[in-house]
Amino acid sequence: MREIKVSVPGKVILTGEHAVVYGSLAVAASINIRMRICLKASESPSQISINFNELQETIEWSSLDDYLNQGTIPGVICTFVKEAVLEPCFLSFSIENDLPIGSGMGSSAAFCVGIAGVLLKLKNVDSVEDINKLAFKGENLIHGKASGIDNTVVAYGGLISYKQGSITHLPFPEKSLKIIVVDSKTPKNTKTMVSKVRSTYEKFPLIYSKIFESINSLSEAFIQEITLGNLDNIKELLRINHNLLRTIGVSCQVLDDCVNEGEKLGIVGKMTGGGGGGICVFINEGEDVRAFREKCNERGWGFMEAEFSRDGIRFEEVNNDN
Amino acid sequence: MREIKVSVPGKVILTGEHAVVYGSLAVAASINIRMRICLKASESPSQISINFNELQETIEWSSLDDYLNQGTIPGVICTFVKEAVLEPCFLSFSIENDLPIGSGMGSSAAFCVGIAGVLLKLKNVDSVEDINKLAFKGENLIHGKASGIDNTVVAYGGLISYKQGSITHLPFPEKSLKIIVVDSKTPKNTKTMVSKVRSTYEKFPLIYSKIFESINSLSEAFIQEITLGNLDNIKELLRINHNLLRTIGVSCQVLDDCVNEGEKLGIVGKMTGGGGGGICVFINEGEDVRAFREKCNERGWGFMEAEFSRDGIRFEEVNNDN
Repeated sequence: MREIKVSVPGKVILTGEHAVVYGSLAVAASINIRMRICLKASESPSQISINFNELQETIEWSSLDDYLNQGTIPGVICTFVKEAVLEPCFLSFSIENDLPIGSGMGSSAAFCVGIAGVLLKLKNVDSVEDINKLAFKGENLIHGKASGIDNTVVAYGGLISYKQGSITHLPFPEKSLKIIVVDSKTPKNTKTMVSKVRSTYEKFPLIYSKIFESINSLSEAFIQEITLGNLDNIKELLRINHNLLRTIGVSCQVLDDCVNEGEKLGIVGKMTGGGGGGICVFINEGEDVRAFREKCNERGWGFMEAEFSRDGIRFEEVNNDN
Repeated sequence: MREIKVSVPGKVILTGEHAVVYGSLAVAASINIRMRICLKASESPSQISINFNELQETIEWSSLDDYLNQGTIPGVICTFVKEAVLEPCFLSFSIENDLPIGSGMGSSAAFCVGIAGVLLKLKNVDSVEDINKLAFKGENLIHGKASGIDNTVVAYGGLISYKQGSITHLPFPEKSLKIIVVDSKTPKNTKTMVSKVRSTYEKFPLIYSKIFESINSLSEAFIQEITLGNLDNIKELLRINHNLLRTIGVSCQVLDDCVNEGEKLGIVGKMTGGGGGGICVFINEGEDVRAFREKCNERGWGFMEAEFSRDGIRFEEVNNDN
């Protein structure tokens, strides 16, 4: 039996969500909240076993083709097994996850990168480039047409920017940034929000174009301020970005409440991701977070302290001798 | 004795405040909440008497020069008397006012236009152009460097737009628009807000320039939608404008609360004017306003129903035969 373990970070979008659809620059960071995937491989039986929270599924190798190209957990796993051109064998995937699912923290990307990672490693491939390429196929299965931001940032770690289809790895700041991620526990609604923005954009193209251009400049400024470590300006940019997201109607009551509760306690942040629900990200450098944590508990929101993760996918030591 | 009575409307800025400082288009409307000024003139004594709420002042003609060029009520009156080249006589000004003072509803402009109106009428001049020119001098005394928007819109009535120093009279919509003006009873703080915007603009010029350009397009769209009478789009534009004003930090808790309370009841509006306090303007076409009026009373806010005023300064009939 061979055992392969990886862990993959989650991510948050720092600036530029939604505007990115219209060609603006967006910035994302991987964060040290991780998904861990363990693959145990042996010669028989010819089955794939999946163990992910309440999902316990066993798939016969002979029916593997039935799952191909489906945007589900078994679908992605079977598709990747096929892509990796593995001979029939026993593959057991166990997944442990600290990332809230479907909230914009990159759980699906971490899953795709992790599964791609363990499978390619089984074939003694461990280049992040190859892993990321395969993971991107999974993201496309799950999300329709994915941008590739999420899988790239969690595969490589660190910070990336994205604009008009091209991804740039940003220098990791000298001092990693501590953040708070608050999960509103209201499901995000990316698809509805994207089409809401589109419909107002079509009505008022000039107004919205200028807002997207403003967000583009904001992302550029953000990269600079992150490099300089200028916390006051970083916070100011997040505040502006949140309000611009509000302006285009992708925030909602609970996200505004969340940002306001932080602001009242001097903790600055913004909604992040698709909006209409989902999560908010706050800067947590020297802030006294106790009162905010309590407020979040009181409101039934998830409260996670995290920081930027320099590492992307990480192969964990395992002893394969026994 | 000769008696001259005028009434002058107030105004609200509909779109473009603050951005106008950076060259964007702004739109203002005169509204049917009025200031009434009555001048009684006779040959003697050589005094100027002023009666405006708690202000009761009598100025000897011989000391008129002491008040010249002061940005106060007696200052403006004495300066205008001098500008009108009147011989010493008895002038008694009585002012009745329904406009909240210093809240951005054009009370100072209405005052300047009204005083200019009654004084020029005494010399048998009643062209709005001349009245407006003299009123502008008063606005400059009161505000330092005024844009001329306020005196122009209340002198001529109707709607105007303003961009980079030039004022355009807009066609009055076929159907006048009903609005609600809510006075937060928190003093507005234009000077502080203007310099707050300036300081962030200097830090992030590109981000803010694009926001101002967006507001410029918004004002252009607004003029079009007002002409078309498209209420849904008018409301959407006000909502966007409020959020952009929030973005540049000139709204405040009480103004946001005010807009949110309206929004909760389906009544759409925005802060208007300098911000940091002051007033909000809402569309009131077919809305059920009772609950909103009650909420405003409960919060201690002023609630005024109004509509656009086609008329500017109006000379009221008086019987001067007796």
